[in-house]
Amino acid sequence: MSETTGREEQIRKLAGLIKEIEFAMLTTVEPDGSLRSRPMMTQRVEFDGDLWFFTRASAPKVGEIEHDRHVNVSYSSPERQHYVSMSGRARLVRDRAKIEELWNPAYKAWFPEGLDDPELALLKVSVEQAEYWDSPTSTAVHLVGFAKAALTGESYQPGENEKVNLK
Amino acid sequence: MSETTGREEQIRKLAGLIKEIEFAMLTTVEPDGSLRSRPMMTQRVEFDGDLWFFTRASAPKVGEIEHDRHVNVSYSSPERQHYVSMSGRARLVRDRAKIEELWNPAYKAWFPEGLDDPELALLKVSVEQAEYWDSPTSTAVHLVGFAKAALTGESYQPGENEKVNLK
Repeated sequence: MSETTGREEQIRKLAGLIKEIEFAMLTTVEPDGSLRSRPMMTQRVEFDGDLWFFTRASAPKVGEIEHDRHVNVSYSSPERQHYVSMSGRARLVRDRAKIEELWNPAYKAWFPEGLDDPELALLKVSVEQAEYWDSPTSTAVHLVGFAKAALTGESYQPGENEKVNLK
Repeated sequence: MSETTGREEQIRKLAGLIKEIEFAMLTTVEPDGSLRSRPMMTQRVEFDGDLWFFTRASAPKVGEIEHDRHVNVSYSSPERQHYVSMSGRARLVRDRAKIEELWNPAYKAWFPEGLDDPELALLKVSVEQAEYWDSPTSTAVHLVGFAKAALTGESYQPGENEKVNLK
């Protein structure tokens, strides 16, 4: 398996696991250290290593992310018994072209004014580590060194981290 | 509504929401600040303000909790469109009587040796704050001051925190 294929396959596997899960739980760190989560509608574009969510620019979670960029995005599919954990860093993006690219009418439930809502913004989560469970009793499959591979072009080296159990 | 009833009703509401959700996602903080989550089988006893999970005493999450006790436990029911976030602190409990009280044969999938497994332990999460969504598009219902009420006998005072929206 070439280095590039390794990363592409990891992304493809994760993309397949989260594809039909409509809401993820986004966990952020509050200034006092407590962890909060909330359901976030997932985007319909294929996962490529970044996750995107629509948000209000003034939402409390945006303040939490400005204080501590670490987030976790978890996906639960009780029906298929799939569970995914994605660890990464989030930032607010207000790029109009990206907003238009990701917008779909389902978001009107939260933003009745649609693309003209001045509060409309995106959270971009750059995934650095991911794990998934094909069933809750299975051993976690850890996909570590995700961002590192993306940034350096090097793939993850098994043995680098005892948690890793790449299938 | 009396102060005691307020807390009891909050707990009853949360207990009802999480009752049929078999796996929660437990999020912990790694020493480098990144957030990780994993599916945890939920206990069959009624929620009373604390959450209990079986764990191996040497599991990585136990080390993470010893480093930073803050955790989030999220419950997702895509079928019923219920989402719950519970924020609290976790600690390892190795009390044999409590382990026996909570044990049920379903845990054999993780602990084939059952109650004789020397690694068998419990994580106790004392919930300090909770929020739930009856549907993802609804406004969050925040149940704050949860632990404070439990500790002091005082109920949460609306207006104390702008995030609060007690139904």
